[in-house]
Amino acid sequence: MISFASDNNGGVHPAVMRALLEANQGQCPAYGADALSAEAEALFREVFGPETRAYFVFSGTAANALILEALLKPYEAVICAESAHIHTDECGALEARGRKLLTAPGRDGKLNPEACLALLAGLGDAHHIQPRMLSLTQPTELGAVYAPEEIRALADFCRARNLLLHMDGARLSNAAAALGLGLREAGLDLGVDALSLGGAKNGLMYGEAALFFRPGLAEDFAFYRKRGMQLGAKLRYVAAQFIPYLRAGLWLECARQANAMTRLLADLLQDTPGLQFSRPAQANALFARLPRKAVEKLRENYAFYIWDENPAECRELGCQELRCQEVRWMTGFDTTPGMVREFAGAVQAALR
Amino acid sequence: MISFASDNNGGVHPAVMRALLEANQGQCPAYGADALSAEAEALFREVFGPETRAYFVFSGTAANALILEALLKPYEAVICAESAHIHTDECGALEARGRKLLTAPGRDGKLNPEACLALLAGLGDAHHIQPRMLSLTQPTELGAVYAPEEIRALADFCRARNLLLHMDGARLSNAAAALGLGLREAGLDLGVDALSLGGAKNGLMYGEAALFFRPGLAEDFAFYRKRGMQLGAKLRYVAAQFIPYLRAGLWLECARQANAMTRLLADLLQDTPGLQFSRPAQANALFARLPRKAVEKLRENYAFYIWDENPAECRELGCQELRCQEVRWMTGFDTTPGMVREFAGAVQAALR
Amino acid sequence: MISFASDNNGGVHPAVMRALLEANQGQCPAYGADALSAEAEALFREVFGPETRAYFVFSGTAANALILEALLKPYEAVICAESAHIHTDECGALEARGRKLLTAPGRDGKLNPEACLALLAGLGDAHHIQPRMLSLTQPTELGAVYAPEEIRALADFCRARNLLLHMDGARLSNAAAALGLGLREAGLDLGVDALSLGGAKNGLMYGEAALFFRPGLAEDFAFYRKRGMQLGAKLRYVAAQFIPYLRAGLWLECARQANAMTRLLADLLQDTPGLQFSRPAQANALFARLPRKAVEKLRENYAFYIWDENPAECRELGCQELRCQEVRWMTGFDTTPGMVREFAGAVQAALR
Amino acid sequence: MISFASDNNGGVHPAVMRALLEANQGQCPAYGADALSAEAEALFREVFGPETRAYFVFSGTAANALILEALLKPYEAVICAESAHIHTDECGALEARGRKLLTAPGRDGKLNPEACLALLAGLGDAHHIQPRMLSLTQPTELGAVYAPEEIRALADFCRARNLLLHMDGARLSNAAAALGLGLREAGLDLGVDALSLGGAKNGLMYGEAALFFRPGLAEDFAFYRKRGMQLGAKLRYVAAQFIPYLRAGLWLECARQANAMTRLLADLLQDTPGLQFSRPAQANALFARLPRKAVEKLRENYAFYIWDENPAECRELGCQELRCQEVRWMTGFDTTPGMVREFAGAVQAALR
Repeated sequence: MISFASDNNGGVHPAVMRALLEANQGQCPAYGADALSAEAEALFREVFGPETRAYFVFSGTAANALILEALLKPYEAVICAESAHIHTDECGALEARGRKLLTAPGRDGKLNPEACLALLAGLGDAHHIQPRMLSLTQPTELGAVYAPEEIRALADFCRARNLLLHMDGARLSNAAAALGLGLREAGLDLGVDALSLGGAKNGLMYGEAALFFRPGLAEDFAFYRKRGMQLGAKLRYVAAQFIPYLRAGLWLECARQANAMTRLLADLLQDTPGLQFSRPAQANALFARLPRKAVEKLRENYAFYIWDENPAECRELGCQELRCQEVRWMTGFDTTPGMVREFAGAVQAALR
Repeated sequence: MISFASDNNGGVHPAVMRALLEANQGQCPAYGADALSAEAEALFREVFGPETRAYFVFSGTAANALILEALLKPYEAVICAESAHIHTDECGALEARGRKLLTAPGRDGKLNPEACLALLAGLGDAHHIQPRMLSLTQPTELGAVYAPEEIRALADFCRARNLLLHMDGARLSNAAAALGLGLREAGLDLGVDALSLGGAKNGLMYGEAALFFRPGLAEDFAFYRKRGMQLGAKLRYVAAQFIPYLRAGLWLECARQANAMTRLLADLLQDTPGLQFSRPAQANALFARLPRKAVEKLRENYAFYIWDENPAECRELGCQELRCQEVRWMTGFDTTPGMVREFAGAVQAALR
Repeated sequence: MISFASDNNGGVHPAVMRALLEANQGQCPAYGADALSAEAEALFREVFGPETRAYFVFSGTAANALILEALLKPYEAVICAESAHIHTDECGALEARGRKLLTAPGRDGKLNPEACLALLAGLGDAHHIQPRMLSLTQPTELGAVYAPEEIRALADFCRARNLLLHMDGARLSNAAAALGLGLREAGLDLGVDALSLGGAKNGLMYGEAALFFRPGLAEDFAFYRKRGMQLGAKLRYVAAQFIPYLRAGLWLECARQANAMTRLLADLLQDTPGLQFSRPAQANALFARLPRKAVEKLRENYAFYIWDENPAECRELGCQELRCQEVRWMTGFDTTPGMVREFAGAVQAALR
Repeated sequence: MISFASDNNGGVHPAVMRALLEANQGQCPAYGADALSAEAEALFREVFGPETRAYFVFSGTAANALILEALLKPYEAVICAESAHIHTDECGALEARGRKLLTAPGRDGKLNPEACLALLAGLGDAHHIQPRMLSLTQPTELGAVYAPEEIRALADFCRARNLLLHMDGARLSNAAAALGLGLREAGLDLGVDALSLGGAKNGLMYGEAALFFRPGLAEDFAFYRKRGMQLGAKLRYVAAQFIPYLRAGLWLECARQANAMTRLLADLLQDTPGLQFSRPAQANALFARLPRKAVEKLRENYAFYIWDENPAECRELGCQELRCQEVRWMTGFDTTPGMVREFAGAVQAALR
């Protein structure tokens, strides 16, 4: 079944598989004391600057929760968007580590300084949790890409108030590709302090990197990682994946392909009667509203998520009687134009 | 450098690599909803019995900490040996989840009913943590293998007192191979309720299984796993590894080889002057005491751990002036007789 | 300085002081095994019904956090109003215990079924925290009192969806007095499962009761209390306070006085130019908006909180240039008509 | 029933009751912003030195758990004696806050540098919890009092290894009285960094002080306290108790009386056939072994704890057939010579 459910439905890129095979030569020290891990660490410093400290963990949820735990004191909080993955899709992983988050409203999953400012209450007052960090997701969980100046404004806001800025970059490659920026330019250079950098949604098998860009930040993260059950034994196999990903530009190649496929799908469905794009499709996810009947028909042959069973905006379509749903269609590095064309045809047929 | 540091210094078994390559065919659902995951789950039920529930997590520390968290109420404790990995080598992962452990003394890392009984104080009294589980490691962290009747005695002890029995089976394959038992016979059939089953120390790349053998135990473990940051997205690649591991007897082939290499090393070093075996070498680890100078010389060319810088028993050797150390030499599925012979020769040379 | 800051600025009611003196006779068992504690427990069953289980803790924050911890599994969440004390004023005490809360919008600090329904997403899906409880505050932190039918509607909503209903009753006495209901009629009889019952804001010295109304709920709460650092040694002194509070109607006498003083203040300030009541004053708190200059002048001689430095609604007064603030004026059992009249006069003078 | 169960079975000293009555004058700010709290804080600085920071909490368990949480990073551990209250009698309160403790063997509940040294393994290695603090109890839970030089040796040990030293001083008054030292001389001056100072076992009603003696230690403790559910609203009533306790020497008067009564009991029972003192009775607890039958008979009329149902040492008495038990007899500020004499007579009668 062709899937537009998520970019994590994809396989592993052949270049990554080759790297894994090549890494499988004899024995070597565990826990990151091997040559490939050293090479990967050097590569992270090359890509993100010499002060970068990179730690591999197993998953994006882990990168987020552990970075936040390590950077926050127990009584400090993180501010995130209402749609942030750390709030809606991590089953309380952050709270399980004793930390609290505060949600700010915003458009298309974006944080903005005004909404964050409203949450900076009770500073210095022991009754109140103390906001100490902003966490933004780039691209957002709703398919939008922050413009560089939007992130810079949040970073300025943070700097002026002694807050830290974390970026959930599970799909940062897709945002950087969309913006025409390098990974460093898309994060660190805009004022981000710590980054969860994902790869599994963009051609890797497993493994995520927790990155700290400023000296003094979480220099003891190795302890948080082990205590957080995220220290892999055979780390050479994670390092081996990130090496082609970062060095040979694999991240960009994969992300461009994923983005292009979403672009193609949006182009093919532009002006399709009965269908309305509900979010800006700026990376590799397309959100649309269409009648429930069409959704049901499509799901007989294609996998994708219903994002909102009953979107408030469906009345705008003048189609109350059609009972619209909002769906998310996501493309990955291994989505092909053929798959997109077939699917676009099926959407149009279902809407007829 | 030839390594006797740990079985996690090994590579990935070629059959596992092949399985990963074969799994890398197109897209499929994430989070374990794919066909390979279903196949692996069926295989777990086939091997461990139809009531078994298996959940993949990333690491052994995670399997241990999450099983214990899920099976204990917040005010309940687990009893383990003083040398247990969950106490000494997980940087407080269990306590990070709000649970407490109590340590019992014992020989060679083994629990015994008498020592556990002494810890069952204050039952029903709210001032005291309530012991509710025993966790044993098979083989122990000190190289010993519980005899089946020893485990059965612990299981009987548990049943009589409404305690649960957990087995840390990071290396269960090695114990089962040593005992000539199947994996089910070596755990479930002896009365174990929940098992952390490892593979990464025995030829897999990553991934561990949390197994529950009785209905009603942790049926909501999926939530603990996600909240515990251990739900992998591309789970097919974990499932793919466990299929040959369990089905084709790979676990046994690998474990036998690892055990045989420890046996060979022990045989070659038997009666070596200046060296004394300090623990029973019943699986794939050999503990020995030898003079510090010999240790230092050996470590120029071979990797291994010093287990005890200053063992109390070194006086037994009549060698106080030699200042003995206790070392651990560990073999894996990819340790070869040639490596062992070379190393044994080096040990003997260093002791001369 | 006369205080309208909080009802916790008050002293201890003389009848409570007498009870403490009487309790101070010789030695008795600690931790609640004494005769006064038994008498108090019987009294709780008399007042709230025979199935009630009452546990004393030290503070309202503790009653809330521990009841919620004990009733929620680690991956379950509580839904509360955005203004709920557990969200805004407990410095993350609930999250410190690993639990997550979700906030629902509503008027005057009230929950309503519609807003709660919108948060019941992802049930059964391990990615999402699982909402399992509603927590309402009666009266709300914004001075409003739920009508009995409003609570009943929330209780029906809960029952239909297998949710639990918790009431933060730090000031339940004030709400019950305002509604003309008994404490049982104001909580348990409306469908509440568990209640944090406070007294320190209404004439007691310290101590709060965690009450469970249904068998099977938190029968092991004694362990949560001790582990939560809330088991007092000399519990007779807490029990002694609650006996006159519950038996002799002290709760009602104190609450009526507090409510009457807020009513009097509201009456005296009715139609005062430049002042607008911003919330319904249904218990013992009056919220008002008035120009910042008047606020500053008043605070030279009277203690009270500025609730909102810059309320959105201040434009309604047609007074942008005055830069209004929202303040909270709170009365207690020991607020006198003379204090209220003096203060009302001062407010009117400041506004002139 | 006359009680030798615990010093927490006692009442409130009349001078403390008077202080509470005097504090009950009108309204004042809550949460420690009142004049009595300021007076108490000044008094703490007067008694313990100008750099002391004192925070009131509700209970000794809370003082211990919160001080340790605030001073330890999540991956750091505290070393305590096997009999330490924080290990055996707090139902996992410390682990509930995500921290781990390591237990060291020792005589009569005392820590010693050698046993602590053996636990300082794996420093800097992320697999291992990082020991960062010692916590000693003075007097110990087994009735012994550390000599000043014993504490100084532990403090030197800590200073040399960058460890912190915490004292659980739930009964510090009794130790100081026994040693003829002031409270400051008995703690801070011996090198203690942080102190849990109790009073409820020595004549107060409730309330304990968390004290930090060095600048830079836990300056943000107010947040830990609130998040830890230990911020009392009407703090004047705690402050009021500590003022006579510290200023007028009430702590010493009460502790001397308690100690003298234990001394008297020991003197009266010296050389009683069939009874053996099992611990040094250096403060206000007497531990003894005597035949079970005598214990049973005594418990018909007197309250006390059986400490060990089946002490290993009972064979020393040459009385296996008598099946000895170890009991704890504890005296308090309100134990009288008459009570002691009556009880000593009853013990001797029971042993005849």
